[in-house]
Amino acid sequence: MVVAPSGVGKTSLTRRLVSDHGDLHLSISATTREPRPGEHDGRDYHFVSRDKFQSMLSEDAFLEWAEVYGNFYGSPKAPIMDALNRGESVLFDIDFQGAMKVHKQAGPDSVLVYILPPSLAEMSRRLHTRSQDSEEVIHRRLSRAKDEVAAWEQFDYVILNDDFDRAYADLAHIYHAERLKRARNPWIGDLVNDLLREEI
Amino acid sequence: MVVAPSGVGKTSLTRRLVSDHGDLHLSISATTREPRPGEHDGRDYHFVSRDKFQSMLSEDAFLEWAEVYGNFYGSPKAPIMDALNRGESVLFDIDFQGAMKVHKQAGPDSVLVYILPPSLAEMSRRLHTRSQDSEEVIHRRLSRAKDEVAAWEQFDYVILNDDFDRAYADLAHIYHAERLKRARNPWIGDLVNDLLREEI
Repeated sequence: MVVAPSGVGKTSLTRRLVSDHGDLHLSISATTREPRPGEHDGRDYHFVSRDKFQSMLSEDAFLEWAEVYGNFYGSPKAPIMDALNRGESVLFDIDFQGAMKVHKQAGPDSVLVYILPPSLAEMSRRLHTRSQDSEEVIHRRLSRAKDEVAAWEQFDYVILNDDFDRAYADLAHIYHAERLKRARNPWIGDLVNDLLREEI
Repeated sequence: MVVAPSGVGKTSLTRRLVSDHGDLHLSISATTREPRPGEHDGRDYHFVSRDKFQSMLSEDAFLEWAEVYGNFYGSPKAPIMDALNRGESVLFDIDFQGAMKVHKQAGPDSVLVYILPPSLAEMSRRLHTRSQDSEEVIHRRLSRAKDEVAAWEQFDYVILNDDFDRAYADLAHIYHAERLKRARNPWIGDLVNDLLREEI
């Protein structure tokens, strides 16, 4: 799971990782909030009504869900399970609380990556540049970032995004290396068994 | 630590990793065996006399040592500690028993990578091609490889060397990702503290 405060470049990093790796499935969250300009249903979020969200909740259709700033967000289970059954990895572009919930359910098999901004001043500059949020929302985001950043020791990896290309290379290294972990490759057992049966 | 039976391409992989990464120090083993054609003192091994090896042993100068096929091998402590004090990582191109000993001393901070041959037949072909060993030695190496390969579950990562470039890319991903682990980057704590002191 990749976690970062808004305005740290998380979306650009995760979208590129997914487009570069066919065996990586991006979990698209469902949300009751309104689409922002440029956002597409099914690509950025599944935009659903409050009624639809409630009925999904009652069907236990989310791996995790939360209410943030008055809107509901959740990770639908079905596409995640389908991807895992196909042997793919699943990437969660998710907030801090959601990541902790998924981590609790998925256990040590989940990998927590935190993307750090070089400074809050730089993060504030980026939030102002993208001009999506009011001053009040920006202040709330910066304040929340402070709380999240303080929990950096709960993450497996921390990437400093002071340079996009380097940060992306870091993220890609982590993705590849984690796929190479012995525990994620039970097929090696079959290969080893074949090898042990060889006559020498 | 990178471990593999002879004839799996371990030396080519580790030498390239070290030459591509200035912050990676290769631990050069000391040995009492004779240099093979093409081997250089100080590059492939530190070739030492039995007396010298014994005096190093009595000075506790090795992180690990062993007798293999009648020759002594050991990893001298001093250059390893110097490299770690400079903030570098240390790569051990080492045999299975040695890796287990270093792992026991270094604890979870050490990373165990095993390079698998695609088959024993292929490994045998490579050992015959390089023509360094007698038939007897080749048979002994293959037999030892079987014992080691059976212990694959003690390794953190397993790389299948059926294609040099892919295996090298795998090894480099592991190296970079391991350096990005939160626990190996205590300086992030300072960065986070600076960030938490920022006024928003």
